[in-house]
Amino acid sequence: MTDRILRATELTAAGFEPFGDVIETEGRQWRWINQATAQRYDDLARVDVSQAHGRPLISIFRASPQKLPFHVRSLERHPLSSQCFYPLDGRSFLVIVAEDGQGPIAGRIRAFLSSGHQGVNYRRNTWHHSLIALGQISNFLVVDRGGTEENCEELSVDGEVVWVAGPQ
Amino acid sequence: MTDRILRATELTAAGFEPFGDVIETEGRQWRWINQATAQRYDDLARVDVSQAHGRPLISIFRASPQKLPFHVRSLERHPLSSQCFYPLDGRSFLVIVAEDGQGPIAGRIRAFLSSGHQGVNYRRNTWHHSLIALGQISNFLVVDRGGTEENCEELSVDGEVVWVAGPQ
Repeated sequence: MTDRILRATELTAAGFEPFGDVIETEGRQWRWINQATAQRYDDLARVDVSQAHGRPLISIFRASPQKLPFHVRSLERHPLSSQCFYPLDGRSFLVIVAEDGQGPIAGRIRAFLSSGHQGVNYRRNTWHHSLIALGQISNFLVVDRGGTEENCEELSVDGEVVWVAGPQ
Repeated sequence: MTDRILRATELTAAGFEPFGDVIETEGRQWRWINQATAQRYDDLARVDVSQAHGRPLISIFRASPQKLPFHVRSLERHPLSSQCFYPLDGRSFLVIVAEDGQGPIAGRIRAFLSSGHQGVNYRRNTWHHSLIALGQISNFLVVDRGGTEENCEELSVDGEVVWVAGPQ
């Protein structure tokens, strides 16, 4: 088996577009609300949880930090829902996804680094790694789907050993 | 007109129960997920946005800080949806609501102070003040309703001048 090292790149809306939404204020439109005491950056993510009578859930995940380089052993996807993560401690975290396509998934893995003031919303059915905090125990607000149907598929990454490192 | 000063009290799930949910980890149940790399505090708020074909929106509000004591001039409520606010800077904010009931609303106003690691989810049709940041410009993740129907009623607080002060 070969070893491959991927470098995470800066998380941008354009780069992440095939996988979902970046939830951020930087460069986005807003409008004044509440007698001009607040700016509203509206509708930053497409919440897609209503398949098969699902409902939106708001949860908090508290994640242990992982070390870099990070060994990508498996990915998951949710056939019935999007899944949104927003960091609550202003701390960078690692976002690992895979493009749709043919052939071994190892070759389709992409990695992004959130600034700590960016959340992500994985589109329904997008292969992604589970939450990867960095540095310290970190909290995230999560919006995903409630419902009794099975909604998680897992896939082992084999054929290559894929490591994700920080940006250059 | 008389002046009345209300002191905000600590935000607790029990105290806030008539008005909605407190989104927090303190004292809540959780379970291990993601190969025991994360704790999931599940389903902390009842998202109620589907009336009249509404859909959940995820937005960021950036609010200017207000001074204490705070003069409560008006309240609002959303007949078609809950509305959830979670602070993204770990900073305390003021939560002002009114109980259902008869008689002038001024007498039914209640005030709570979030620790900065607590969000709130106003139940549908609950009278509440718009977002009140304290200290510095503060960001909040907001989950409310998308849809074209009118979904905001406003009510002036008259008869009494109500000020909200910090805790004793």
